Amino acid sequence: MAADWTAIEGLPSPRLETLFAEDADRLARFSVDVAGLHFDFSKTHLTEQAVAAFEALAKAQDLSGKREALFAGEIVNTTEGRAATHVAERGEGSEDDVAAARVLHARMRALIDAIEGGALGEIRHVLHVGIGGSALGPDLLVDALGRESGRYDVAIVSNVDGCALEEAFARFDPTATLLVVASKTFTTKETMLNAESVLQWMGEGGVDDVYGRVIALTADPDKAVEWGVDETRVLPFADSVGGRYSLWSSIGFPAALALGWDCFADMLEGAGEMDRHFRQTSLAHNAPVLAAFADLYYTHNRHAETRATFAYDERLRLLPSYLQQLEMESNGKGVTIDGAPLTGPSAAITWGGVGTDAQHAVFQLLHQGTHLVPVEFVAVIEPGDTLAEDHHRQLLLNAFAQGAALMKGRPNDDAARSYSGDRPSSTILLDDLDARTLGALIAFYEQRVFVNATLIGINPFDQFGVELGKEMAKAADAGGQEFDVSTTDLMKRAFG
Amino acid sequence: MAADWTAIEGLPSPRLETLFAEDADRLARFSVDVAGLHFDFSKTHLTEQAVAAFEALAKAQDLSGKREALFAGEIVNTTEGRAATHVAERGEGSEDDVAAARVLHARMRALIDAIEGGALGEIRHVLHVGIGGSALGPDLLVDALGRESGRYDVAIVSNVDGCALEEAFARFDPTATLLVVASKTFTTKETMLNAESVLQWMGEGGVDDVYGRVIALTADPDKAVEWGVDETRVLPFADSVGGRYSLWSSIGFPAALALGWDCFADMLEGAGEMDRHFRQTSLAHNAPVLAAFADLYYTHNRHAETRATFAYDERLRLLPSYLQQLEMESNGKGVTIDGAPLTGPSAAITWGGVGTDAQHAVFQLLHQGTHLVPVEFVAVIEPGDTLAEDHHRQLLLNAFAQGAALMKGRPNDDAARSYSGDRPSSTILLDDLDARTLGALIAFYEQRVFVNATLIGINPFDQFGVELGKEMAKAADAGGQEFDVSTTDLMKRAFG
Repeated sequence: MAADWTAIEGLPSPRLETLFAEDADRLARFSVDVAGLHFDFSKTHLTEQAVAAFEALAKAQDLSGKREALFAGEIVNTTEGRAATHVAERGEGSEDDVAAARVLHARMRALIDAIEGGALGEIRHVLHVGIGGSALGPDLLVDALGRESGRYDVAIVSNVDGCALEEAFARFDPTATLLVVASKTFTTKETMLNAESVLQWMGEGGVDDVYGRVIALTADPDKAVEWGVDETRVLPFADSVGGRYSLWSSIGFPAALALGWDCFADMLEGAGEMDRHFRQTSLAHNAPVLAAFADLYYTHNRHAETRATFAYDERLRLLPSYLQQLEMESNGKGVTIDGAPLTGPSAAITWGGVGTDAQHAVFQLLHQGTHLVPVEFVAVIEPGDTLAEDHHRQLLLNAFAQGAALMKGRPNDDAARSYSGDRPSSTILLDDLDARTLGALIAFYEQRVFVNATLIGINPFDQFGVELGKEMAKAADAGGQEFDVSTTDLMKRAFG
Repeated sequence: MAADWTAIEGLPSPRLETLFAEDADRLARFSVDVAGLHFDFSKTHLTEQAVAAFEALAKAQDLSGKREALFAGEIVNTTEGRAATHVAERGEGSEDDVAAARVLHARMRALIDAIEGGALGEIRHVLHVGIGGSALGPDLLVDALGRESGRYDVAIVSNVDGCALEEAFARFDPTATLLVVASKTFTTKETMLNAESVLQWMGEGGVDDVYGRVIALTADPDKAVEWGVDETRVLPFADSVGGRYSLWSSIGFPAALALGWDCFADMLEGAGEMDRHFRQTSLAHNAPVLAAFADLYYTHNRHAETRATFAYDERLRLLPSYLQQLEMESNGKGVTIDGAPLTGPSAAITWGGVGTDAQHAVFQLLHQGTHLVPVEFVAVIEPGDTLAEDHHRQLLLNAFAQGAALMKGRPNDDAARSYSGDRPSSTILLDDLDARTLGALIAFYEQRVFVNATLIGINPFDQFGVELGKEMAKAADAGGQEFDVSTTDLMKRAFG
């Protein structure tokens, strides 16, 4: 599985402006249009030669075989002995997996119909408790698409800190609130504690049958029933759907409820369109593949430890956090899928923010700092607001101008006022931000992560790195365990 | 100015557990208590030998002379020919600077009294428009401390995207809204456009004298008056207060209004206490200095490109974004204060998030990824919520357990389930989160940035790196300018 990076590491590194000057077709060569999204990778250092070297690596790493194994529902998550069937949620997996996902979606839809019909009483507020993959996806969807739906007010509460829950309590009426408990295992400490506190708040707020107002989203329905949720209000999802890939499953329930089923279905369809593009397009014209080639070029050849995504759209302000989990939890690994230590870097650290805000906060370092940071701009042609046109115009002009400025730079005799340029960026331009394009965008990022993992030779679907801290917190809670003197001192200060 | 890093680069690099085993006093040696904050740097790789090497570097770079120059109000921002007088805002600068800041604070307080007294009519909502340093500070203060104040509802709107403003419009009543326009130059494009749109919304909402409801926070009062704000409602601040250091000045107005003047004054006092600690304590026991030594050890000796801060408190969820600007805009530079190219790294890329959420999103990479990321935990002993005690207990247990797990690791025959350990962290534990401790915490970070800059030999107070992109956006807006083919194509797609 250990990949040979020699050809890639030997690639020349001309300046971006030279690449444009030498190849009149550069823009067309490194642009891709699919599912209402325009991808422009021309301001990265990808070249025909680089793409050829990466294609050879992809062949050596059997990317196309691994891709087919993913879509066929084979055991691609080998350390846990599981398939990764999130693609089946959008109709692109094996026949059996797709059929199973459809049954669960139908169940989800029926429950939404029932709630809309008043089966659970008057519901205006949806309090969703879940953390990590059980929170970030629904939160992104509702925040991006739910601003004008006006159907239900949704709060996604993840942190075990009671301040988070109290913020939702202050906004919501307990007698009109639906509690949604999202946990793959239905044992997540933070989520179960939050759920208990919501039940108490509802009870104190005058709800007689608090459990009658609970929906469970889980891959372990028995645990949910055991905890007290009626079987008819448990929405299962497949064990083979990983937490950070689960917004397509019943974990997307609060979004489907708030936005309406049709919207949720459109999102699945957009993701499916991206899946088909990923599966059927030659590597050199394949958006997630080209993006991953660029990622790997910067981590391996330029030793970039990070990559930054700036959403030039307020509706996508949660995208960078969503990507942090998707990319770092998937590919922040130290060993290959065969258990050998990695000799090169794994995932870049994903960070970023919202434009234009970030220009006034972190772009100083991007333009003049000593670290190379590949930047990605995400912007939307159709405005989301109805204010004066200049708002959206300035937003987009700034996104484009930043990419131009990073590449071009500008020398100055005064070194403090000089810009070296040659700093790479890619741009993703959505025709409009709707369920379909957002679904396609998220699927793009998922498949890019998959290509990165395959070329590095790691398993993107496990996450054993999160276990040790959890276990040590549990041990500290139980007491009797010995810790280092610093940790012992901190606990003494906090708990006496 | 070029520093000699030889001694530092030659430091040995034993494992953290070895350092604890070899020095029984390690915890005491690398802990500092000041202003209600406990700093524990013992789980970093700092040693007596390392501190001595950094002390020598600090001497060579004249840290104590530079520190006194900062507090004396000398021209420390040499590229712009200005002092940096944010310390005077909390009473710790030169006599003249402190007196000048007091006059402006008194003016701010008088206006708050007038508003509370009803001089501007019934005000329930405060709509603050500003971006970067004119937004991040007030936003952090109000979000961290304003949850129960119930005095005024505050919205801080920064993005030029109209979606951001529309979100505030949906919450606020135009007839009960105060518009606060914050811009150091009073020419910031995003802010002025947002301000215009708020005026329009107020006018359409039935406010007769819309300008009568505007407060301006600026270092250029003439510009504000010219724009239409009555002189009595302009709150100036000194030109020598940099944007990202300005929350102590009139830029903090929305926080002072929402939290009350006493609270704002406490914040200044807490920051002043940290300033005095920084100024008077020997380097080896000085919190911002030790923190900077550790920062530089990881960037120089371990080549860490990033540093991550995790606030284990929902009330501090905006802290990582605040620090991104403070650290990266200050120290993300490529040249020394004398204009020579840096030969080593400048600022690390600051990222992070909120605990426990981040454990379920990005900690995989921290425990098992290939990049070394120095981590900082910030937590508060006194809970901010009134829910069951277990919420806060779990929150803190997890913060402490993560630090312990990162350091200790755990070998496993199965490589995918193995943790290498020896991953550093520092912990900042606040007795309580109130105005005083928050002021001290922010001042700690400011002074840490200053020490980093001084030891690297750069100017932390300018930000020329943000100019080029701004100018190119302006040129694109005006038209006629030629751009690269990729940028031209993007503009055509967006604007036709």
